[in-house]
Amino acid sequence: MKDTQHLYEKTISSQTIYEGKVITLKVDEVLLPNGHTAKREIVTHQGAVAVMALTDEGKLVAVRQFRKPLEQVIVELPAGKLEPGEEPLACAKRELQEETGYQAKDYTLLSSFYTSPGFANEILHLYLATGLTKGESQPDEDEFVEVLELTLEEAHELHRLGEIRDAKTVAALFAWENRLLHGKK
Amino acid sequence: MKDTQHLYEKTISSQTIYEGKVITLKVDEVLLPNGHTAKREIVTHQGAVAVMALTDEGKLVAVRQFRKPLEQVIVELPAGKLEPGEEPLACAKRELQEETGYQAKDYTLLSSFYTSPGFANEILHLYLATGLTKGESQPDEDEFVEVLELTLEEAHELHRLGEIRDAKTVAALFAWENRLLHGKK
Repeated sequence: MKDTQHLYEKTISSQTIYEGKVITLKVDEVLLPNGHTAKREIVTHQGAVAVMALTDEGKLVAVRQFRKPLEQVIVELPAGKLEPGEEPLACAKRELQEETGYQAKDYTLLSSFYTSPGFANEILHLYLATGLTKGESQPDEDEFVEVLELTLEEAHELHRLGEIRDAKTVAALFAWENRLLHGKK
Repeated sequence: MKDTQHLYEKTISSQTIYEGKVITLKVDEVLLPNGHTAKREIVTHQGAVAVMALTDEGKLVAVRQFRKPLEQVIVELPAGKLEPGEEPLACAKRELQEETGYQAKDYTLLSSFYTSPGFANEILHLYLATGLTKGESQPDEDEFVEVLELTLEEAHELHRLGEIRDAKTVAALFAWENRLLHGKK
């Protein structure tokens, strides 16, 4: 790996502004590589998983839900926050079953990525899940989701209409199309 | 579009916790569809752009920079925040030139997506830029970036090594591979 020490910012001080249930906000003062100082607003988050679950018929399992920050109902991959100490794969299995009722025989990690590295440390582990069997969903008491099964064409149409419009689901659409172009179902 | 009113959460009250330079944090109390109440921690952000710029030789223009929330140097697409009132396309052109020195003849919007819809309203407009010509970069005084040009193979290797690990750049890698599988350069 390339030496990158000359790009680093050194923390001078750190102030916690808010500690919430989902996120914590802190503001750090940093020393820049040129000797100047700057403030960095930083949201910390425990991390999350998302599951690109494909049925044997080649359909994507998705959920429709309201997202308060957007004041919109959107269609997304099943996803959820890691519980303290929880392994990402265990979280993926739990969230897929709770939200959609599906269980999967095979899980493959496609990528682990930071959702918004400019201001947040949230990491999202994106899994492909295949070999699905359908059971009953068990959403949290205060969780309201509708389960959908989409062909690639239907998913593209929802993307064009702006109903699919979050990073993990858009990334999954591109990955799914790749998979099909490579001749996989 | 499907009727989704039954999924909505109604705002009961909203409290602004912090107004920063990049983000604002508020906490809303909401009425859920089942009549319960809940708190929603919400980060608001002015939105951003990212550019998947491909050279005539078929290489991806990327930047290596330090990200304080991650305490890591990572490799990403050129990107930046929208200025007040700025059109996303104008922002894309500005950020590509400032960070990398490149100008592009052709821009195509690939997707506009929310980076983390569970707690933030940040939207990111992802453009494909082609027909590149190279000039001088003009980074902001307090911005420290190194410009790279990567083959798809090199980009995949950086993804495997964990140096490419943010949502927009991973989404772009999948989209780039699609493009090549479709026979485009």
